[in-house]
Amino acid sequence: MTQKSQKNNLTRLNHCRIVLIQTSHPGNIGAAARAMKTMGLSDLCLVNPKSYPHPKATEMASGATDVLNAAKCCNTLDEAISDCHFIVGTSARDRAIPWPLIDPKVLATKAMAESEHAKVAILFGREQTGLTNEELQRCHYHVQIPANPEYSSLNISAALQVIAYELRMAALAAPISEKKDRRDATALEMEYFFKHLEDVLQEYEFLKINAPRQLMPRLRRLFLKVRPDVIELNILRGMLTAVQKKKDRE
Amino acid sequence: MTQKSQKNNLTRLNHCRIVLIQTSHPGNIGAAARAMKTMGLSDLCLVNPKSYPHPKATEMASGATDVLNAAKCCNTLDEAISDCHFIVGTSARDRAIPWPLIDPKVLATKAMAESEHAKVAILFGREQTGLTNEELQRCHYHVQIPANPEYSSLNISAALQVIAYELRMAALAAPISEKKDRRDATALEMEYFFKHLEDVLQEYEFLKINAPRQLMPRLRRLFLKVRPDVIELNILRGMLTAVQKKKDRE
Repeated sequence: MTQKSQKNNLTRLNHCRIVLIQTSHPGNIGAAARAMKTMGLSDLCLVNPKSYPHPKATEMASGATDVLNAAKCCNTLDEAISDCHFIVGTSARDRAIPWPLIDPKVLATKAMAESEHAKVAILFGREQTGLTNEELQRCHYHVQIPANPEYSSLNISAALQVIAYELRMAALAAPISEKKDRRDATALEMEYFFKHLEDVLQEYEFLKINAPRQLMPRLRRLFLKVRPDVIELNILRGMLTAVQKKKDRE
Repeated sequence: MTQKSQKNNLTRLNHCRIVLIQTSHPGNIGAAARAMKTMGLSDLCLVNPKSYPHPKATEMASGATDVLNAAKCCNTLDEAISDCHFIVGTSARDRAIPWPLIDPKVLATKAMAESEHAKVAILFGREQTGLTNEELQRCHYHVQIPANPEYSSLNISAALQVIAYELRMAALAAPISEKKDRRDATALEMEYFFKHLEDVLQEYEFLKINAPRQLMPRLRRLFLKVRPDVIELNILRGMLTAVQKKKDRE
């Protein structure tokens, strides 16, 4: 690979946002910033951190205070990922509804392919309880570090270090390119669609009467797997609107 | 791969010793034990830790106090690795004499192949200054995590997490086997050989008169690359002894 293309791939690391949700210990936020910078990541977003800013965060960031100071604080996950197209959640345990599950190496390859055209977000949950089911259901994939089943509890910054390392290794590898003719829907556009879909299902009382258990999570999983582009999403929403209008006329 | 062979490969992780040399912060020792246990490693050795045991180490070990409490404390690196056959040192920067340098993925593949027959040691240096040149020259390979050149300072436990992760990934992959008819020399046997070699060179005043700069490090690098088995090492030492006897007769 030429020097130039390698540089171009490394800049893709800037399209990967790390989102830390309700982190309790400010030291973990600082350590996360340090782990990011050592691997060339820079886009950090904090959703409702418990104590931040905090001297312990600055101390643990060590030489990465620039990444820490540039971190964006948000009140909701929606705010944090609204402009992102490809969302991955870290998950330490199996959930009620199995989601597409990948390891850090596969995540890195996918994220580097995505990040040519789109923004990637990788979500890290709370120290004790991780991500909620609702947060996990916002994701296209879940990533799990293949850990010792007898003790799989990686510290947040340790898990982030492994994932950031794999992202960098993938960025340093041969260029990956996936051609698309339209851009993918963003997380925000997908949420509008899911809201629309749920409204229609409610209007038709489908949720009450015919719904199998956990219908909405299942539909989320299905449409997140589809990865609709903007045109496709417009078609889907057009169909929902048509269905609504028909009902209004009845 | 069958369940059985996978299990067999995972047990090889027990043949990988993590050696922390003169760690200053006890918290880093605890975090190292945690990183090890999450990836299924258990053999921890501390060479002259600054403050240990220490409540901060226990706190940071979290659920890995068993690994921490089983850690062996040594006064010298010699003690820590005397029974090991394959030694790798972590290194963040380029050294005067370039040594065979590998990344964590290659290290993991090699270490898993080695650990079928032999004991592997991976050395981590001091927080500020890393490993000394002398310590690095005890190694068959140096391992470097491909980090951001503008900020490559990974915390010890973060670097260990990445390396332990790659070891586990390699252990989970297809079985690797390298057949040998004799076992490799241990680190201790190699040291006896190097001492013997140096004695002979001194007796013949080769070190004083003809020595190129850094002769011993160059000879170390050469013979560590050879990886002599016990028979080969006996032949080499026999040659040295023969040379000594000849001189004594003169």
